[in-house]
Amino acid sequence: MTAVFQTAGTLLAGHGSFQSIAGRLAAWDNKPQRVLVVTSPSLAAAGWAKTLQNGLSVEGIASDCLTIHLKEPTAEQIEDLNRRVEREPFDAYVGVGGGSILDAVKLLSVRRTNFQPVEAMLGVGKVIREGLPTVLVPTTAGTGAEVTPNAIVTLPDQELKVGVVSDRLYPRLAVLDPELTLSLPQEATAATGMDAFTHALESYLGKKANPISDMYALESIRLISGSLVRSYEDGQSLSARSDMLYGSAFGGMALAAAGTAAIHAMAYPLGGRFGITHGTANAMLLPHVLEAQLDEVRGRLEAAAAAMRQGLSGAGEDGIPIQPGADWALEQMADWVKRLRIPQDLTAWGVKAADLPDLAEAASKVTRLMANNPKAFTVGELEQIYRRLMPAKNA
Amino acid sequence: MTAVFQTAGTLLAGHGSFQSIAGRLAAWDNKPQRVLVVTSPSLAAAGWAKTLQNGLSVEGIASDCLTIHLKEPTAEQIEDLNRRVEREPFDAYVGVGGGSILDAVKLLSVRRTNFQPVEAMLGVGKVIREGLPTVLVPTTAGTGAEVTPNAIVTLPDQELKVGVVSDRLYPRLAVLDPELTLSLPQEATAATGMDAFTHALESYLGKKANPISDMYALESIRLISGSLVRSYEDGQSLSARSDMLYGSAFGGMALAAAGTAAIHAMAYPLGGRFGITHGTANAMLLPHVLEAQLDEVRGRLEAAAAAMRQGLSGAGEDGIPIQPGADWALEQMADWVKRLRIPQDLTAWGVKAADLPDLAEAASKVTRLMANNPKAFTVGELEQIYRRLMPAKNA
Repeated sequence: MTAVFQTAGTLLAGHGSFQSIAGRLAAWDNKPQRVLVVTSPSLAAAGWAKTLQNGLSVEGIASDCLTIHLKEPTAEQIEDLNRRVEREPFDAYVGVGGGSILDAVKLLSVRRTNFQPVEAMLGVGKVIREGLPTVLVPTTAGTGAEVTPNAIVTLPDQELKVGVVSDRLYPRLAVLDPELTLSLPQEATAATGMDAFTHALESYLGKKANPISDMYALESIRLISGSLVRSYEDGQSLSARSDMLYGSAFGGMALAAAGTAAIHAMAYPLGGRFGITHGTANAMLLPHVLEAQLDEVRGRLEAAAAAMRQGLSGAGEDGIPIQPGADWALEQMADWVKRLRIPQDLTAWGVKAADLPDLAEAASKVTRLMANNPKAFTVGELEQIYRRLMPAKNA
Repeated sequence: MTAVFQTAGTLLAGHGSFQSIAGRLAAWDNKPQRVLVVTSPSLAAAGWAKTLQNGLSVEGIASDCLTIHLKEPTAEQIEDLNRRVEREPFDAYVGVGGGSILDAVKLLSVRRTNFQPVEAMLGVGKVIREGLPTVLVPTTAGTGAEVTPNAIVTLPDQELKVGVVSDRLYPRLAVLDPELTLSLPQEATAATGMDAFTHALESYLGKKANPISDMYALESIRLISGSLVRSYEDGQSLSARSDMLYGSAFGGMALAAAGTAAIHAMAYPLGGRFGITHGTANAMLLPHVLEAQLDEVRGRLEAAAAAMRQGLSGAGEDGIPIQPGADWALEQMADWVKRLRIPQDLTAWGVKAADLPDLAEAASKVTRLMANNPKAFTVGELEQIYRRLMPAKNA
């Protein structure tokens, strides 16, 4: 079993670490002269971009801010954004935002230095040249995008979501400052938190799991188990937000080293065809995909359950068995789905029973992820899993 | 608490990973044209350099091999080696060996691109320019040198060992292939294995411990606890050697993120004045330094004990308490000292009782490490710790 691991050039973490970004950029070997800060309207309104730009200015670094409203970008949106910025003399890009913003910055950085359009970068290892150096600051916990080689692109004509996977997408600097996640609304806290947990758990259960990914996955599972409900119920808790942010980054590191599997494969067509966001789709699917392959994952799920127990005990949760098993882990996840009000009804997005065979067919074709899944699901079995998220079965 | 983490550009691990080094070099953005392989006479005799050079040749990369007999290099030795290779058109250095070889390669890489002599690089952050890209392949488990920003230099006139600490010392590629550690003799397996454990434990107990270093430290402690005795008693066990190599690398990553403390500070003068190798000195000191500050570290040592227990249980060791405490952890380390025949008598290296005050004085001046120690030892207390390694106290 050979394991390969890469991550952000430098990982900077802790409350207040956002304040030291400018100083770090100024100390780079090739100190940037002009930086583009990419963020969302609401984060810009909260003052984060301004704070960063003031800091850059003190260090003698010029900057511009591009505020974009972006939800899981299409290839065309990235091309448009690139046309808006490619002629400006930027030598570094900084992304401050959720997974969509960070993915956009990763793609913009390589789009700038390559003649390839984004569509030619889809798949694994297709990006030809190094991009501009990037700094990624997540404001959700999260996608783990700040430490993965992946960026997800939506292809609306084909009703698909496809990944660009390339070592060239790792940032030069990733910054985990929990203060930037304090204002994340409850619904997004729930969906992105469950998503982060899914990254860790799928990496741990997948066929490509290895000693490096296992370490990150179990620590991510422990941290998220102890802080998911707390960060949802008390969004202002810096300690819960901090644990979630570390947990999300470690989940991303596990994913970078071992990859995800069936849950992610099944989430893609829900995003591509019905616009269900990545985090929500993963969170909806998580317990059902696990239950459908419980026999295949029981042993590993028990080890994951031990890490969940550690986290929950540390957070003072009651009634956790001393030696929790795989079934307890499933019950615990079902409990999170309830307490975090994760949707469990696909019809809310207009999915009809007649759509399920096509969804299952599309998911089965995400072969890169399905090949990593512990159980080889038939298309019929995938359809049955989707069916659990239809009201007749869940009422 | 702000945490900063960096590591090797890529970490490649697993049995057989040595074979893929040449292919990885060939795929680099700036594919090297001529590589210098630095190794020891015995490793060269075992054929490792030849295997690598053949692989490089297949990829169209020229190479030379420099075989050096080196034990904890002096600044002058590095300068001499640099003079021998600096005029050859090498564009990458590969080190295959123990900590001394890897440290030498790290220093040679930056010495080549900087006008500074090595002595001007001593301390933290003193190296001005990036070095040549390096590949580091440890053959002990070990120093963790393949994933740390440190290189230790011996200064014989001053009877001192001093660190060069710089982000520029991280390799571009670190390769953990347990096959290269199979032939490590028992004595070196014991000393370097205890050294690796010390890196993890000191990082975990130190004042700069943080959520990133803690993850690496505890996983390192778990892995080493489960494989240290096995790798000593059955050196041909690939699984024990593999766990030790991962454990050593994770210990190095913990050290890179949080630093070491009093044990290392006290080991330096033993190396500088009496030639006791780094691993042996740390192994000798470990239980005594812990015991002398048990009150200060009890809580954290209990958490470390839980990780030790996990590793030992996994390895099938008997008689491990369900909830081991700090005292059990100390007993366990004392047991390792016995089973691994770690020396416990400084007089074997010519240390006399009259030397102890000077040693304690010298150790107290390693302020960078002492400042990270949980307890602020007085010079008198340090002397008492050294005294435990004199025969009158240990007979």
